[in-house]
Amino acid sequence: MTHSKKRIVSGMRPTGALHLGHYFGVLRNWVNLQDEYDCFFFVADWHALTSEYADPRKIKGFVPGLVKDWVAAGLDPARCVIFQQSQVKAHAELHLLLSMVTPLGWLERCPTYKDQKEQLAQKDLNTYGFLGYPVLMTGDILMYKPEFVPVGQDQLPHMELSREIARRFNFLYGDFFVEPQALLTEDSKLPGLDGRKMSKSYGNSISLSEDMDSVRQKLMTMLTDTNRLRKADPGDPCVCNLFPYHKILTDPERLPEIEEGCRNASWGCVDCKKLLFESMERFLAPIHARRRELDENPDRVWEILRDGNRRAEAAANETMDALRAHLNFDF
Amino acid sequence: MTHSKKRIVSGMRPTGALHLGHYFGVLRNWVNLQDEYDCFFFVADWHALTSEYADPRKIKGFVPGLVKDWVAAGLDPARCVIFQQSQVKAHAELHLLLSMVTPLGWLERCPTYKDQKEQLAQKDLNTYGFLGYPVLMTGDILMYKPEFVPVGQDQLPHMELSREIARRFNFLYGDFFVEPQALLTEDSKLPGLDGRKMSKSYGNSISLSEDMDSVRQKLMTMLTDTNRLRKADPGDPCVCNLFPYHKILTDPERLPEIEEGCRNASWGCVDCKKLLFESMERFLAPIHARRRELDENPDRVWEILRDGNRRAEAAANETMDALRAHLNFDF
Ligand code: SF4
Ligand code: SF4
Repeated sequence: MTHSKKRIVSGMRPTGALHLGHYFGVLRNWVNLQDEYDCFFFVADWHALTSEYADPRKIKGFVPGLVKDWVAAGLDPARCVIFQQSQVKAHAELHLLLSMVTPLGWLERCPTYKDQKEQLAQKDLNTYGFLGYPVLMTGDILMYKPEFVPVGQDQLPHMELSREIARRFNFLYGDFFVEPQALLTEDSKLPGLDGRKMSKSYGNSISLSEDMDSVRQKLMTMLTDTNRLRKADPGDPCVCNLFPYHKILTDPERLPEIEEGCRNASWGCVDCKKLLFESMERFLAPIHARRRELDENPDRVWEILRDGNRRAEAAANETMDALRAHLNFDF
Repeated sequence: MTHSKKRIVSGMRPTGALHLGHYFGVLRNWVNLQDEYDCFFFVADWHALTSEYADPRKIKGFVPGLVKDWVAAGLDPARCVIFQQSQVKAHAELHLLLSMVTPLGWLERCPTYKDQKEQLAQKDLNTYGFLGYPVLMTGDILMYKPEFVPVGQDQLPHMELSREIARRFNFLYGDFFVEPQALLTEDSKLPGLDGRKMSKSYGNSISLSEDMDSVRQKLMTMLTDTNRLRKADPGDPCVCNLFPYHKILTDPERLPEIEEGCRNASWGCVDCKKLLFESMERFLAPIHARRRELDENPDRVWEILRDGNRRAEAAANETMDALRAHLNFDF
């Protein structure tokens, strides 16, 4: 497999509408990478099963929604491969083959394993599949022999585990897999409306497909500097839930004026919210426009997936054919 | 999936030539079951990888040999489905789906897991795949919705685990899988030439494809009642390595005569070995004849597998289509 651009692979689970936290944490990076790299982005629907196994019925509905969010946010199916994990069956086979060489201890010691199990304690994740999550992920990555995997700081342990599995495979059977490098991407960490991490389950998020009335409503009721009871009181942007939004969404040249105005009480929270709403409108308008196009043409998202699945499958089959030959396991 | 005959599924790993111990322990039962049941017998090549992962290159050569052993022993590809696990990719997918619902503790507590890990301690089997062996096996079975699985006493714990996984799946998602029953088959337990368990690694076995000169040689050098130094000494069949072979291979009507003759010294060990050689010849002649036919037509075994794989795949795809629809995971 040769490709002149360097390749990257990444995926997201279809577990509901994406919000601004996802966009500024991950999706914006993907959009920015799609010209420089040969990109494979996949809907990790089998992964969603590892934690959502008790209620798999919801996942199906989230798949087209996720693709719509991606394309609306700026991923261009003509410039990257957008596909669905479960539709490229070779992922299940590679997962099985990698499971044979992966030491149990590596999985048990994986820091994110313990973390997630605690976070999702009510879900009973003491399953074989949940423990093997990184093995499945490693297969998803190695399948496409990427040079890079775009990851945030918190995913580095998983990435290191994937590299170790690739190394062990190469050690046992002779060089086959490229050891992918982590491509550390910026996570702008837009906080939730209440200042905590943005998360749908906290009810503090704005989704990429949220209508503008709802956005306005949410912004208008946000808590700002709670010591500032009236406009005449000076405020402090550092303790305000809203100010971080300006830092990400508003023209940076306006920021000094906002900060100063807030501190010297010449600029009120209502002004501030109106300005943020404008910034938000400017940001969401093209996303909503692309989303509307997709909604008006419901077949389009399935066409995108069909085409992407076909391209991913071709690459995956090439890897698997070579892999089976490499292992003398080709019949 | 409807079938008038009840269905059974079973498999063997391709790890080398089958010997008489395999025949009288398992294979004879398969041959006897093939008319009464709708039989699926598979070459468990992915399973072979769980313990042989360090040297997968050998497995390829063992696959056609195993099928030859089966057909030579009397499995008839016209009356049963003979297929190769790794060629029906749906097994990898079902394994993945079952892994999501299988509690880790069930696998860790599986008695055969600890046993095998100790027996094969030099192989470093602390891998994710080895722990998940029963999950893969459960998928292999459930895929074909069999009423029965022919097993020996020692495999009952695995069988119970498969039933538990099927129950858990049905409990989580609504009835889908048939809970297969164990069909306890007779294990005649032919001992090895030295009286221990017959095993290639002990060097005490006779393979189904062993040539008759080698069989004669092995029988002639077997230890009999070691207290019987000359024919004039009375012997005791109960402490003789050879006598159990007569019980399985020689016309039962001859047994009293042998036992008596041995005890009253009218019948010597050389006579006894000659008679056993005759029994062995009668037993192996048709097996060797069928084996020769296969060896003379090397394509035949691959034709058998191609045809069996096709039939197994049709049944497997039917199950997987229904399963994906059942989970609302059909795209
Ligand atoms: S003026 Fe703006 S930055 Fe200052 S407290 Fe109000 S909302 Fe926050
Ligand atoms: S006569 Fe036969 S049964 Fe008796 S000791 Fe010799 S070989 Fe064994």
